[in-house]
Amino acid sequence: MGKLQEVRNKQVIFRDYIESSTRFPIESDFVISTENTIHLEVPKGSNGVLVKNLHLSCDPYMYILMMNIKVPQSLDVFAPYTPGSVITGCGVAKILDSGHPNFKKGDLVWGITGWEEYSLITKPEELFKIDHTDVPLSYYTGILGMPGVTAYFGFHEVCAPKKGEYVFVSAAVGAVGQLVGQFAKLMGCYVVGSAGSQEKVELLKNKFGFDAAFNYKEEHNLDAALKRCFPEGIDIYFDNVGGKMLDAVLLNMRNHGRIALCGMITQYNILEQPEGVNNLINLLTRRVRMQGFAALDYYPFYSKFLESVLPYIREGKIVSIEDVAQGLESGPSAFVGLFSGRNVGKQVVAIAHN
Amino acid sequence: MGKLQEVRNKQVIFRDYIESSTRFPIESDFVISTENTIHLEVPKGSNGVLVKNLHLSCDPYMYILMMNIKVPQSLDVFAPYTPGSVITGCGVAKILDSGHPNFKKGDLVWGITGWEEYSLITKPEELFKIDHTDVPLSYYTGILGMPGVTAYFGFHEVCAPKKGEYVFVSAAVGAVGQLVGQFAKLMGCYVVGSAGSQEKVELLKNKFGFDAAFNYKEEHNLDAALKRCFPEGIDIYFDNVGGKMLDAVLLNMRNHGRIALCGMITQYNILEQPEGVNNLINLLTRRVRMQGFAALDYYPFYSKFLESVLPYIREGKIVSIEDVAQGLESGPSAFVGLFSGRNVGKQVVAIAHN
Repeated sequence: MGKLQEVRNKQVIFRDYIESSTRFPIESDFVISTENTIHLEVPKGSNGVLVKNLHLSCDPYMYILMMNIKVPQSLDVFAPYTPGSVITGCGVAKILDSGHPNFKKGDLVWGITGWEEYSLITKPEELFKIDHTDVPLSYYTGILGMPGVTAYFGFHEVCAPKKGEYVFVSAAVGAVGQLVGQFAKLMGCYVVGSAGSQEKVELLKNKFGFDAAFNYKEEHNLDAALKRCFPEGIDIYFDNVGGKMLDAVLLNMRNHGRIALCGMITQYNILEQPEGVNNLINLLTRRVRMQGFAALDYYPFYSKFLESVLPYIREGKIVSIEDVAQGLESGPSAFVGLFSGRNVGKQVVAIAHN
Repeated sequence: MGKLQEVRNKQVIFRDYIESSTRFPIESDFVISTENTIHLEVPKGSNGVLVKNLHLSCDPYMYILMMNIKVPQSLDVFAPYTPGSVITGCGVAKILDSGHPNFKKGDLVWGITGWEEYSLITKPEELFKIDHTDVPLSYYTGILGMPGVTAYFGFHEVCAPKKGEYVFVSAAVGAVGQLVGQFAKLMGCYVVGSAGSQEKVELLKNKFGFDAAFNYKEEHNLDAALKRCFPEGIDIYFDNVGGKMLDAVLLNMRNHGRIALCGMITQYNILEQPEGVNNLINLLTRRVRMQGFAALDYYPFYSKFLESVLPYIREGKIVSIEDVAQGLESGPSAFVGLFSGRNVGKQVVAIAHN
């Protein structure tokens, strides 16, 4: 059994389901617990890894897991959280002990981990080893992690862009949106983004190089705003919000346009009685393709993604903005802020520096 | 100027727009006119063709043209009819006189023509010449015409089917639906169809070889009906109706499923305030592709289509049911019947035999 080093393990505990799905998450859906301890070694015979968590990622999909939605087995990536247990999410971590041949002490990894100081990960084969550390480690929660994979393959594969096409991105300062817009500019597209504040609109135009941007909260008619930005119509819509914006976009699509459904953050709180989308007939008359997708389907191509994106980062051709909250205790507040758009850029929680 | 043969030209005239789009077409939207005459020769210097119309096709999309919907130029295939003028649609015709090098007197063609005894077609390059006459000529309004192209490419290209997949077809006895189901069976799929009467349900099972079928009018819960027919979920939905059926299907799609949007006959009468589709979030969580398409995008591949489908017809591997109304005067009634599902199979109007 050896001399096991046992330490306190601070955790973010999920309190209970949002039963009616009629509200967004609030901080009191979570409890910070300091009651648990952990042995900093992998149990004998296990092929898991014991990690120290460094950065945690706040992602909108985690809200879905807070509702007790019965999901078919085929949707087990959306299996709900367990009340009273630590929540999980993407993160960057350092391996302290390994029972798995692919990992050794000191390796850096990213993938699904717990919102806690230390985690025992029992399926380490689902982790990605971090080989490139000349970029900030937190990037592996964003531009080089799940949101990066989402943006890269969602845009290049699902949207099948061509040079010169008209591209619209909603929630465009978010972790995924800011990257999609930059990928689109690199392709030679005309790119417009929407966001929820004047500050974000300025970022889109001045930091991320969008051709134009608008604050959706200041537009009383989204259809008119889109017609103003896209007098020729929209070829590609990268949808991070769903709902009314999607409905307005449907009125402005060009023939043979493509819509990538990446997120429906406006709809997650009304899953049981979502807003109706009324203009679907335009998919038919304009022969538009609309496709839902998920990053995990593209994880097998992660190395191809890195080969393409790392040089862009090193050459400054793609930039990334992060909103970093300090300390595990700030996690619930940081996560909750996603749903009011409080974050500016990718929301990260830094819980340890090494 | 020559000796021009001038004859009476009976026509179906469009009376006026259905302004509010709050109702389906009715017979009195049309007038049968015997006032006009036509010279049975192509005007000197024209490269058009003068045809005698033999069979006219009743297609749901024609209803869209009866509403005065302002369409962008990119949607000019949906340019509305002109009040007081003859309506147009797909048909089979015989060339009486030609100013175009590709056509000569006696040739049989199919394509867009007028609902009248004789038509002067000024863009004959958009017509298809009929080379195979060992099958009924009326087939070129259905299985070998626009609905056939729609079914073939909509299923094989848009739905990208694989052997053994679960396929659902709505309006399954219709001109397109009956073919989609048979193509799906030939691919080795499991196929279920919906229709609006017990007679049609029997046809689906006994004539077209569907694995199962249900009468949507007798199901008070479409979601439950689909779960009964597809306990494992649906891989492919070929949507001919839109609206509530589409919404119920969205709850039953499997991961990576495909939905081909071919028609939204339930929605055409409420275009200005269509029914909301509430379950789009399932496109995202299940990573489903939904795509509108139109036959005309596949017309360049018509010869490939014929090569594939003609042998199936000759070998009896694909059958087709037509509902043939006799005489131009029966045209309005036959067309109007589409919207109450009165037709059984492809609705054709036979106006001349040769």
